Amino acid sequence: MRHVISVFVENKHGVLSRISGLFSARGYNIESLCVAPVNGDGLGRMTIVVAGDDWVLEQINKQLNKLIDVIKVQDMTGENFIDRELVLVKVNSTKTTRSEIMQVTNIFRAKIVDISPKTLTVEATGSEAKINAIIGMLRPFGIKEVARTGQIAMSREFTGRV
Amino acid sequence: MRHVISVFVENKHGVLSRISGLFSARGYNIESLCVAPVNGDGLGRMTIVVAGDDWVLEQINKQLNKLIDVIKVQDMTGENFIDRELVLVKVNSTKTTRSEIMQVTNIFRAKIVDISPKTLTVEATGSEAKINAIIGMLRPFGIKEVARTGQIAMSREFTGRV
Repeated sequence: MRHVISVFVENKHGVLSRISGLFSARGYNIESLCVAPVNGDGLGRMTIVVAGDDWVLEQINKQLNKLIDVIKVQDMTGENFIDRELVLVKVNSTKTTRSEIMQVTNIFRAKIVDISPKTLTVEATGSEAKINAIIGMLRPFGIKEVARTGQIAMSREFTGRV
Repeated sequence: MRHVISVFVENKHGVLSRISGLFSARGYNIESLCVAPVNGDGLGRMTIVVAGDDWVLEQINKQLNKLIDVIKVQDMTGENFIDRELVLVKVNSTKTTRSEIMQVTNIFRAKIVDISPKTLTVEATGSEAKINAIIGMLRPFGIKEVARTGQIAMSREFTGRV
């Protein structure tokens, strides 16, 4: 099963290598990971996406909680959450294909952030599925380069019933 | 000095912990890091932002290149590149402050992606400075939660002169 986990950490050196080490020691492949500071008070937030056995993940969760630099671990699985990812795609373009690439960009509410006579660079945000879809639509033009952030996630607030 | 580094890797388990270990072994703090698959062919791209001594970074660069799972290391410093980051900010809101938060959101060309009677969640993308600015503008309303991806970067293509 696929899990999206938020780990709140003290932003000290070594914390990332200790945490990623916990996963690799168990042969658990991290699909994507982001870590960045929050609030400028020395705290960081890590979002880790992993696919694998629930029981092993529970063990990792327990061990994460034992690390001194880990403040909180939140497994988003089963929660109602927003997940978003950012991607930059540099794609070949010619005078002929440029307008077609611009159409795809508009449909995905993406943006063109760089242009040269032979390329366009597109910036898009969305769920993983949306990002996969836009990359898939741009592939036939010839993708030169892709950079993805991996997902970040946040729980939705509205819990009312309709 | 601040460096933005792209590392192209074989997406195997353990590669992240080996790479982050190289930095922490030298007391080098990683400011932000993203890693995600590219192209679905088992390759990953990591973007690492670090601030520190140029000489030490050069050493790390050499050692990165020696790792078997590292395909290419590209230090963006000094290049003309696009850098982008994605953030989700959950902020307290009331009937009175909602329109003010919406104004800030519009000015930054950000989006509201979740709403509840007491909160709004804003999604924004941009350079690190822009992300810091929107967080700063939302702080007075009371920030409940922040998740940032950290930067990704891609070189600009146009090299012509004007």
